[in-house]
Amino acid sequence: MADAAGAAHREFFAVRTVAETLAGFRPARRTAVETVALEAAHGRVPGEPLRAPHDLPGFPRSTVDGYALRAADTYGASEGLPSYLDVVGSVAMGRAPSVAVGPGTAVAMPTGGVIPDGADAVVMVEHTQEAMAGTIEVVRPVAPGEGLVRADEDARAGAEVLPAGRPLRAQDLGLLAAAGVTTVAVHARPRVAILSTGDEVVPPATSELTLGEVRDASAVALTALVRQAGGEPDARGIVPDDRDALRGALTAAVAQCDVVVVSAGSSVGARDETAAVVAELGDPGIWTHGIALRPGKPTLLAQAGDVPVIGLPGNPRSALVVFRLVGMPVVRLVGGMTDPPPEPRLRARLERDIPSAAGRFDVVQVAVRDGVATPLFGASALLSVLTAADGFVVVPDEATGLPAGRDVEVTLYT
Amino acid sequence: MADAAGAAHREFFAVRTVAETLAGFRPARRTAVETVALEAAHGRVPGEPLRAPHDLPGFPRSTVDGYALRAADTYGASEGLPSYLDVVGSVAMGRAPSVAVGPGTAVAMPTGGVIPDGADAVVMVEHTQEAMAGTIEVVRPVAPGEGLVRADEDARAGAEVLPAGRPLRAQDLGLLAAAGVTTVAVHARPRVAILSTGDEVVPPATSELTLGEVRDASAVALTALVRQAGGEPDARGIVPDDRDALRGALTAAVAQCDVVVVSAGSSVGARDETAAVVAELGDPGIWTHGIALRPGKPTLLAQAGDVPVIGLPGNPRSALVVFRLVGMPVVRLVGGMTDPPPEPRLRARLERDIPSAAGRFDVVQVAVRDGVATPLFGASALLSVLTAADGFVVVPDEATGLPAGRDVEVTLYT
Repeated sequence: MADAAGAAHREFFAVRTVAETLAGFRPARRTAVETVALEAAHGRVPGEPLRAPHDLPGFPRSTVDGYALRAADTYGASEGLPSYLDVVGSVAMGRAPSVAVGPGTAVAMPTGGVIPDGADAVVMVEHTQEAMAGTIEVVRPVAPGEGLVRADEDARAGAEVLPAGRPLRAQDLGLLAAAGVTTVAVHARPRVAILSTGDEVVPPATSELTLGEVRDASAVALTALVRQAGGEPDARGIVPDDRDALRGALTAAVAQCDVVVVSAGSSVGARDETAAVVAELGDPGIWTHGIALRPGKPTLLAQAGDVPVIGLPGNPRSALVVFRLVGMPVVRLVGGMTDPPPEPRLRARLERDIPSAAGRFDVVQVAVRDGVATPLFGASALLSVLTAADGFVVVPDEATGLPAGRDVEVTLYT
Repeated sequence: MADAAGAAHREFFAVRTVAETLAGFRPARRTAVETVALEAAHGRVPGEPLRAPHDLPGFPRSTVDGYALRAADTYGASEGLPSYLDVVGSVAMGRAPSVAVGPGTAVAMPTGGVIPDGADAVVMVEHTQEAMAGTIEVVRPVAPGEGLVRADEDARAGAEVLPAGRPLRAQDLGLLAAAGVTTVAVHARPRVAILSTGDEVVPPATSELTLGEVRDASAVALTALVRQAGGEPDARGIVPDDRDALRGALTAAVAQCDVVVVSAGSSVGARDETAAVVAELGDPGIWTHGIALRPGKPTLLAQAGDVPVIGLPGNPRSALVVFRLVGMPVVRLVGGMTDPPPEPRLRARLERDIPSAAGRFDVVQVAVRDGVATPLFGASALLSVLTAADGFVVVPDEATGLPAGRDVEVTLYT
């Protein structure tokens, strides 16, 4: 059998470390900027810093229920010797004040009301008493600026309020809404082609399998991870293990998408086939034939022009490990996400030794309960190890394993 | 001014601690279970544990490129004294084997191929050499079960493969696809009404504000957080500060939605108005008038039948803090999410003291750089403090602040 006989030689291909890969495989492609409605902008990535179109809140605003006044009128005030002020009116929510504050006078204020002219502070109602109709006692001094926010305190007109490259969060949308920004210029979601290969692979909807067939587990899982990375998945189905079919499918994907992901088949023969076709897609071509990573060594990284092409291992579990580690960062980068959202991590105590070879980066699935991380071993062909896992632990290249009892950082799945 | 004059009394309303709130305000409502396509099931919450419809992978499968054989034929094999086996055929990917393995024979296997009858192990091709045409030398002993997975090793027919109550992750979809599961029974997304109130509040699309008006910043931000919690937001616009209008809007929302969120207006008068209307919505009624939380004390929690009603503080920053802390868990619970996804957290060193009063739970916004968390102070009316923050630190009820230099846990925003 040619496949098996040739395999020994191919194990000598040059591999890259994970660190080299993350630092070095950084395609220049970026998606264009498009305009979306604010309501649809959650998680989208601004192409340029966003600026406040006008001062925010735009008027000096009370932050308490109380009385607008001149701070100087309250200096020295105490329970024993209160300041007396004439209440000359009140401010209604959402309305311009109809009165101003002069020496010895105050205006009743709701939280959020407009500070009247002449006032430089608001005393909380709790620090006042009604002395007689129309007059209050202030029992505590108030400093200028107390009880209010300035007209430009939330943002000055023209000031940068949100950075480029960081996905918009809930509060970011809130600030933009407050500023009257109803559309945002964001990077288009990178279109990510997902191709499955393998003569044994059939669509998930296949109800009865004939002996030797397996359903395509990778495509639907990769689709979810692409979305999680801010991309727009374009699952293009199963390509036959045939060089012409693969060439046609990959050429079309490179022409139409921003990132191309192909599960390269699980056998050495299928992997070689994929590598040969990818090498023909155009310059600069193949960047690495493998990564010093377990699982996930047979990973192919290439560029056709500025389109990254990611050849994943054929077995779904390895494919998902590699795509999380190497693929999602590429999708984010192409989508302009220079400041990606944080991943949930947890420190936990390792329950058992994890063996590893020096020079190899191991991704070990773990279940976490009560601060203890239990490594889940099992053939890399088993998806159930991934579904049983709460997250993974990394054994870095230089380590020869991790001892039981060690505090480790677990990256948690979401 | 009646609002201001009455406020002092109302500060004495009974407040709950954050811990009491999280443990005690747990409405019984759960959304119905609906069937969705597997491709649309990412993040959705199974109503019942999911089981494997048949054994997975369904046939004994090679995990390496090599030769299927009887392990006993390799016992004692070494470089110096290899075992010789006749290669009687090969297995093609996705096909049933056409030959069986007998004593002294082997069958060439691709990774992922079906193990032929009679074989109990697969030797990696790297541990073999071709001795002559049709004969291999095996230079290392192989144990039974090595180089393969059993027919039910990924999952046994009928076994629970995924728990109820945990949102489906990418790998979970992968396993279901492998098992031929194309639809999943999941909780419907809880429909969450979002109502804004406040005479000063105008829609975000208002291009020119008159003095005193502010645009609705909360609704779009709450919409994003509802989605993040797995809910289906139903933003119902701005309700005038008018008891009849508010009653009408809330009654309709309670009838039509699974959770009702109302920003209760920022002034004491508006809050009282909302509380009065919520109290009339039906039993069991108001659960608390306030939470010992800063910002966010004026939070109203109620139930109208089994529909939770969450009255948020009027200022958008406080509203978002409260909704993250108290509202999102309620949305998740109503959506059947008993095992919510982990939040990203980080340990960092506090750059400056954070003051706090004992008996109050403080949520302090922080920026994080190089392992140092810098508290961001500023009036709770300022949204820019939230947009500048990378996350928040909590000062628990019992503490009177946190000293500079202390290691703190930061919950990071995504």
